[in-house]
Amino acid sequence: MKNVFGTNLTLTLFGESHGAAVGGVLDGLAPGIPVDRKAIEGKLALRRPQGAISTARVETDDFEIVSGVFENKTTGTPLCLLIPNQNVRSGDYAATKDLPRPGHADYTAFVKYHGFADYRGGGHFSGRVTAALVALGAIVQSALEKRGVRIGTHIARLAGVPDRAFADYDADITLLADRSFPALDGGAVAKMQAAIVKAKEEGDSVGGVLETAVTGLPAGVGEPWFDTLEGLLSHGLFSIPGVKGVEFGDGFAIADLRGSEANDAFVPANGGVATATNRNGGINGGISNGMPLLFRCAVKPTPSIAKTQKTVDLSTGNAAELSLVGRHDPAIVHRARAVVDAVTALVLADALAGRYGTDWLRGDE
Amino acid sequence: MKNVFGTNLTLTLFGESHGAAVGGVLDGLAPGIPVDRKAIEGKLALRRPQGAISTARVETDDFEIVSGVFENKTTGTPLCLLIPNQNVRSGDYAATKDLPRPGHADYTAFVKYHGFADYRGGGHFSGRVTAALVALGAIVQSALEKRGVRIGTHIARLAGVPDRAFADYDADITLLADRSFPALDGGAVAKMQAAIVKAKEEGDSVGGVLETAVTGLPAGVGEPWFDTLEGLLSHGLFSIPGVKGVEFGDGFAIADLRGSEANDAFVPANGGVATATNRNGGINGGISNGMPLLFRCAVKPTPSIAKTQKTVDLSTGNAAELSLVGRHDPAIVHRARAVVDAVTALVLADALAGRYGTDWLRGDE
Amino acid sequence: MKNVFGTNLTLTLFGESHGAAVGGVLDGLAPGIPVDRKAIEGKLALRRPQGAISTARVETDDFEIVSGVFENKTTGTPLCLLIPNQNVRSGDYAATKDLPRPGHADYTAFVKYHGFADYRGGGHFSGRVTAALVALGAIVQSALEKRGVRIGTHIARLAGVPDRAFADYDADITLLADRSFPALDGGAVAKMQAAIVKAKEEGDSVGGVLETAVTGLPAGVGEPWFDTLEGLLSHGLFSIPGVKGVEFGDGFAIADLRGSEANDAFVPANGGVATATNRNGGINGGISNGMPLLFRCAVKPTPSIAKTQKTVDLSTGNAAELSLVGRHDPAIVHRARAVVDAVTALVLADALAGRYGTDWLRGDE
Amino acid sequence: MKNVFGTNLTLTLFGESHGAAVGGVLDGLAPGIPVDRKAIEGKLALRRPQGAISTARVETDDFEIVSGVFENKTTGTPLCLLIPNQNVRSGDYAATKDLPRPGHADYTAFVKYHGFADYRGGGHFSGRVTAALVALGAIVQSALEKRGVRIGTHIARLAGVPDRAFADYDADITLLADRSFPALDGGAVAKMQAAIVKAKEEGDSVGGVLETAVTGLPAGVGEPWFDTLEGLLSHGLFSIPGVKGVEFGDGFAIADLRGSEANDAFVPANGGVATATNRNGGINGGISNGMPLLFRCAVKPTPSIAKTQKTVDLSTGNAAELSLVGRHDPAIVHRARAVVDAVTALVLADALAGRYGTDWLRGDE
Repeated sequence: MKNVFGTNLTLTLFGESHGAAVGGVLDGLAPGIPVDRKAIEGKLALRRPQGAISTARVETDDFEIVSGVFENKTTGTPLCLLIPNQNVRSGDYAATKDLPRPGHADYTAFVKYHGFADYRGGGHFSGRVTAALVALGAIVQSALEKRGVRIGTHIARLAGVPDRAFADYDADITLLADRSFPALDGGAVAKMQAAIVKAKEEGDSVGGVLETAVTGLPAGVGEPWFDTLEGLLSHGLFSIPGVKGVEFGDGFAIADLRGSEANDAFVPANGGVATATNRNGGINGGISNGMPLLFRCAVKPTPSIAKTQKTVDLSTGNAAELSLVGRHDPAIVHRARAVVDAVTALVLADALAGRYGTDWLRGDE
Repeated sequence: MKNVFGTNLTLTLFGESHGAAVGGVLDGLAPGIPVDRKAIEGKLALRRPQGAISTARVETDDFEIVSGVFENKTTGTPLCLLIPNQNVRSGDYAATKDLPRPGHADYTAFVKYHGFADYRGGGHFSGRVTAALVALGAIVQSALEKRGVRIGTHIARLAGVPDRAFADYDADITLLADRSFPALDGGAVAKMQAAIVKAKEEGDSVGGVLETAVTGLPAGVGEPWFDTLEGLLSHGLFSIPGVKGVEFGDGFAIADLRGSEANDAFVPANGGVATATNRNGGINGGISNGMPLLFRCAVKPTPSIAKTQKTVDLSTGNAAELSLVGRHDPAIVHRARAVVDAVTALVLADALAGRYGTDWLRGDE
Repeated sequence: MKNVFGTNLTLTLFGESHGAAVGGVLDGLAPGIPVDRKAIEGKLALRRPQGAISTARVETDDFEIVSGVFENKTTGTPLCLLIPNQNVRSGDYAATKDLPRPGHADYTAFVKYHGFADYRGGGHFSGRVTAALVALGAIVQSALEKRGVRIGTHIARLAGVPDRAFADYDADITLLADRSFPALDGGAVAKMQAAIVKAKEEGDSVGGVLETAVTGLPAGVGEPWFDTLEGLLSHGLFSIPGVKGVEFGDGFAIADLRGSEANDAFVPANGGVATATNRNGGINGGISNGMPLLFRCAVKPTPSIAKTQKTVDLSTGNAAELSLVGRHDPAIVHRARAVVDAVTALVLADALAGRYGTDWLRGDE
Repeated sequence: MKNVFGTNLTLTLFGESHGAAVGGVLDGLAPGIPVDRKAIEGKLALRRPQGAISTARVETDDFEIVSGVFENKTTGTPLCLLIPNQNVRSGDYAATKDLPRPGHADYTAFVKYHGFADYRGGGHFSGRVTAALVALGAIVQSALEKRGVRIGTHIARLAGVPDRAFADYDADITLLADRSFPALDGGAVAKMQAAIVKAKEEGDSVGGVLETAVTGLPAGVGEPWFDTLEGLLSHGLFSIPGVKGVEFGDGFAIADLRGSEANDAFVPANGGVATATNRNGGINGGISNGMPLLFRCAVKPTPSIAKTQKTVDLSTGNAAELSLVGRHDPAIVHRARAVVDAVTALVLADALAGRYGTDWLRGDE
């Protein structure tokens, strides 16, 4: 399946950083879902580079909806969305094409594709491809919101600077929707941004941890083996460039608890069942339990840095040094947040379509 | 797909804890692979309960190979393996069938399957199903070993007691193959086991972190989007009951590094390319780079504990208390190790079959 | 995917003709569906050899439900069904193991599996595997009937002897349910059976055409590209050993009509829409239109015949002759009918689950 | 999966007849395959309307390769190809949007998509979408040719006019490559075209049967159950608008033979094994036997005709009449030939990639 993801709602991604365009096709979307260009642009803006803390390559991300939308609503047939590349300076890459950048996919792509891959700017491996993911995810996320499923992601930690934890999930998700730099604690924003600027000045980069909450997901979604909610979400989330860890609920910290601490007690709630705590992140046995989903992604520091690094010249096999002079992000954590939201929306909409059928996402109006 | 996993090598799991049997079907295995009952029994023994630190329910795990093996070699057609349940005491569960156990899938299964699921011992959600996974994984792991791909997992941490890190990967993998309680540091074994026994005495349970290394995987395996090695492995690993986090290389710790620290420099090695460090766990851009794979799974403390817990009576909707009297594991971390190895073997063999074709796993002999 | 079929309802088949058992696993079945052993036995009886017109190898087809059923209803988790082989005379095959039978899979299996496949009785290629398909299909077909979707198959033609066409679809489906030799025209039965006996006496075999009708399928099921109803059904139907052609509605005959003849005019009906004719077999653009589905499968004459045939000795590469002395069917058309019904039930239940969700098949009761 | 097809080589189609473009994404293609615009244009020309025997809507089919090609060779990453729509006259369709055309998908699309589908010119159901399929298939077909796998399709019958059968497969495939109207018997061409023109003059349309041969396919490709070569090919072929039947080898005619006639005897050939006849169309047990593949598709007469037809007004539920005034094909059989070739190429390349790995299609050069 490779670049194709999902069972009932299927996303196919394509495109290269310095090719004609990046884009994606979404198949299995319910018909009649409103497609609002403003909402898509809003999500793309969250992914776009932001001044001093980002790369100098800024794409306007003008997108074209090629198919699957008619009179501003989804048709139910495949939706292809295209984002042409505009601000391309391929010359930056030609000189270093035989010098794989440490931490990047240059070397593994060279081996896998026998030297035929488009090496410019990481080609198909570029984070630029996530623009298409974000745009398509925005359509799905809007539709999920109308069905009461809400998603929000904040920077739990960046360069060692912590944000506060989610408190009131729904209020915090609302708060995050307006923040281009998604920290819940306003005081953390300046500290995090300062750390990014400092890293940049030193020719270096920083990483961080993103934390996501989802409210309104019905209980009973997910499967016992393999297509657990954790398995489906992590499968998608590890596609996001730089993600090296995914944990649910208390995650790695739960490993140090006793069972009596880690188990979320069931309590009666509103005629149904809730849990007193949420250390399992809203998932038991791979299936949603009706509590908010909670998970975190570890995002490594951007591998493209100005500092001189050691590498190997693939044309000779000899040791070499590499000093990158292109336009690079000193951090992608804040930008990756929009991608995490998009992947989450796509995975959950797929699971919901499998459980309730193709038309569920549209609702009955 | 649900209980079906894999693209070119496909595993389907079935069975309930207190039903007739658990089992699985493996489709896509190369023909001509030797099937050694001793090797399978050896892996099953690693998963089996171990005296004081485990449940009193001990299954002999006698397995039957129903299909796909002829004259002790794989035929290339689907291999079905069955492990009949023998030591079944279903009466343990009838009294508490309306009282979902905190931390377990009882409640989510109830919602998803509308009360029709087999509730005895967790039914299809039981860790018992992993016996089939381990037995089938053993066949694949043996075949991978012949092709030079070796897998080993140790308990990096249990109840707060740390093991030493992998040093010489291949030597450590050899060392672990013989250890039923898989710690690299012999001194850690007694401490970990003491912690398990103490938790048990207190009617409680403990969790831990498993760390896995894979050597000999060729560079160039995995895909750029979605079917990244991290995505494929995590999709499988999160199926293992109790796993709440998966991280690769430095994982969550990499989020606190600078790019200049996190990037693994490329260096010439043996006429090819290696990396000076392995903070990315052998994977760049979702694709293996030829270095050892390294990843960790967070395993939560076993949810079945003797201590009284709060729950809800599903037949009345009222608050209730639950004191489990069945046979339970105070820790499954050491047993889960065999499952992690099995899932890893299956995922890698699938990716290798996709890359090199159906016959690769057999080799040319 | 290979031996795995279906998207939301997934069937995995396994087993060899002379191995321990044949069987299958069905994943994605709604919970709460009654499982009636008598109904399954009834369908298996339709597939079983019948006296003079069939092979002398008669299996009782005693089946075991290994998982997925609890208190006589489906649990919603994978249902594994096993049919042990009993009446096995493997000695029949050892002498001819290097002499591939013309028209059979012996030679292609030899090439594909490099000689490791179980050659006895066709191994995994044996029609015996369809017993598992029929048993699992029976569960699904019963559930579909309760939801108003009814399936019936008759022998449209056998050895050149024609049956009458479907007249009143629902009445004819009812009529076929009781007939072990499924011709609609009682007068055709004796003629067809005589042709089978005559072929047998001459050391030969005959083929025929099966025609299937499905009533009660809602309009709007199927997809525009690739997962058309025709594509899904044919994908499954061509798995049935001996099927070499599949056609829908008028099928190949429609190619000789004019558009004005081939188009089924739409007419108002019961407050909805029907078609005046049904030359398109209930499918337009790959999607059900609410009319009965109608399709035909061409079944070739059984390849196993007593007459001497030319082949190649695979151990020497020389020309050889082969005279089969085992127990063989002079016709499988009448037996294949139960398999066609089962495949049809599985494919439609999968498409319906995709459209309406996992619980649709159970209904609301 | 819906609009996504294939396991290791995956095609996703999108686009509407009167939308911005039609297109497709091909994932899993080997890197380093030459992409020759002329070869693609050549295949598109075979699909394009041809003067008096075709619709007056002629698209130039100028295509853009959006991704996956670098320096005129495939990169190994997803190849997206776009064909903008140019000659669009949507006004033709607005007046009849509530009057579903008999034989078309208008009504079933209306039901499935609840009225949200793009109704203009059949929208996503339009044969126009096959232009993308043909263009992408052309790349694959060229690569297959270099590996010795050759595909050719002729019109076996049109409006009752027969062509001669394949004689020398390879010579005939060469001959067909040059013919825009693909009959092997030059004398049949004028008769077939006259029949098309006559139907057009009478406001009607004709259908026909396409026959395809494939040479050079290695033995051992295909699977025993479900992913049989017949099942895979038919799954794809039934996606082609108008195809209502698919048969392999002697197909429906084989049902009337005796086993002694239908079985293809094995004979020694060139140090290997061949069959004396080819009534099974090169496939035994779902797997290629090394002989040429041979299959036929029944194509119904084009449903769009000028003659007045009965339908139902979906806005009122009343009976209505429909006289189509748009630009329509009196036959699509000759144009569909390029689509059959493309689907065949894609299905075989997918099966070959599964068997021999992702790089097989490229060869070793």
